[in-house]
Amino acid sequence: MSAGKLYGVSLGPGDPELLTLKAARILDAVPVLAWFAKQGHASNGRAIIAGRLRADMVELPLLYPVTTEIPMTDPAYRAALDAFHDEAASRIAAHLDAGRDVAVASEGDALFYGSYMHLHIRLAHRYRTEVVPGVTAMAGAAALAGVPLAQGDDVLSVLQATLDEDTLTERLRGSDAAVIMKLFRHLPRVRAALARAGRLDGAIYAERVGTPAQRVLPLAEHDGAPVPYFSLVLVPGWAR
Amino acid sequence: MSAGKLYGVSLGPGDPELLTLKAARILDAVPVLAWFAKQGHASNGRAIIAGRLRADMVELPLLYPVTTEIPMTDPAYRAALDAFHDEAASRIAAHLDAGRDVAVASEGDALFYGSYMHLHIRLAHRYRTEVVPGVTAMAGAAALAGVPLAQGDDVLSVLQATLDEDTLTERLRGSDAAVIMKLFRHLPRVRAALARAGRLDGAIYAERVGTPAQRVLPLAEHDGAPVPYFSLVLVPGWAR
Repeated sequence: MSAGKLYGVSLGPGDPELLTLKAARILDAVPVLAWFAKQGHASNGRAIIAGRLRADMVELPLLYPVTTEIPMTDPAYRAALDAFHDEAASRIAAHLDAGRDVAVASEGDALFYGSYMHLHIRLAHRYRTEVVPGVTAMAGAAALAGVPLAQGDDVLSVLQATLDEDTLTERLRGSDAAVIMKLFRHLPRVRAALARAGRLDGAIYAERVGTPAQRVLPLAEHDGAPVPYFSLVLVPGWAR
Repeated sequence: MSAGKLYGVSLGPGDPELLTLKAARILDAVPVLAWFAKQGHASNGRAIIAGRLRADMVELPLLYPVTTEIPMTDPAYRAALDAFHDEAASRIAAHLDAGRDVAVASEGDALFYGSYMHLHIRLAHRYRTEVVPGVTAMAGAAALAGVPLAQGDDVLSVLQATLDEDTLTERLRGSDAAVIMKLFRHLPRVRAALARAGRLDGAIYAERVGTPAQRVLPLAEHDGAPVPYFSLVLVPGWAR
């Protein structure tokens, strides 16, 4: 018996219709589906493909022990995450060893700031592996807003909202266009950095893109209320 | 009679299976399909969806008068392109005015350095418009290479190979991860900038991703032979 194949399947930003044909084909055939969620919470990835789950599919929930409770810079965070990814890889490997293909559901694009890569680096050298690329949240947000993100020789920076305010400001000053991801608790600092860089005007806030709860508005009009983890800011370059 | 609807339909990096379900649904129903090509050349976008073209579909070729013959900085380039986009928008508007929906085929993601946006800004305020986001060439290349592109709080820069060597070098030095697009004649300069920034090791060259002619290899192993317009370099951040 030969080992199963590992698939890193990108699901896109949230709308089930933004799956690729390839992702849909693989998900409709694969016997084992692994998905990430935070302990005690629903999986955003699983929600995107809820309509494709089959009764004969084995689901393999991979439940994060911590997410934002411990700062990413704390060694305890890294240790907890490493142990979690090791165990998740072992559970997937058990299915692969038994000859069953496994798809890992990955929101957005699997290799673009995604969780899947932690499994990929642990497994791809040991098993046949294929990654299916997908639509990123930033592409989904630009389409929803109907705003050209970058053109010509624009320099586009993809920044995480966890960066400190000075770094964010400096990067924004040096970019024609930018995307700031995973806003969560960091919106006030992101807004301050955008204002310092002279880029608050034109910045667009988007959340839960592709879901029925999606929302897009000029960042300057955002009331500052807490925002979900999966929210982002677009700073279009071309409009300049 | 009401006017038709404009669709900016992203086609992904080249593999017909990397269309989204939404793009496929719209293309299978739309009466008019517009696509870009260079005068006298086949359309890369049309090639991706060759298998979906229907006999009852009206095709609207939009043929660039110039591409790389005139430098982008030359005012004559801008003038020729502006006139071309104005005329293309008028031809699409004629179909929309006649009540026919029009899909504009866009390789990669329509609003991410794509040609579609030139039509979007001319038409979206006048007609019902919907943009379907897609898989970018950089996501396709990372999946093919099986290389995580960025993770954690990596700063990712998207750069065009048309930038001068000093700018490229400086941007690469200030980035954890980078993508350099549209290499074409610029590979020697890109390679020099990567070497100066200490990032040649680990850089990955990819061309024609998603087509039967796709190729991916370490950039350091590239023989320096001329490369196609649709080629790119990935500088993965996470491996650092």
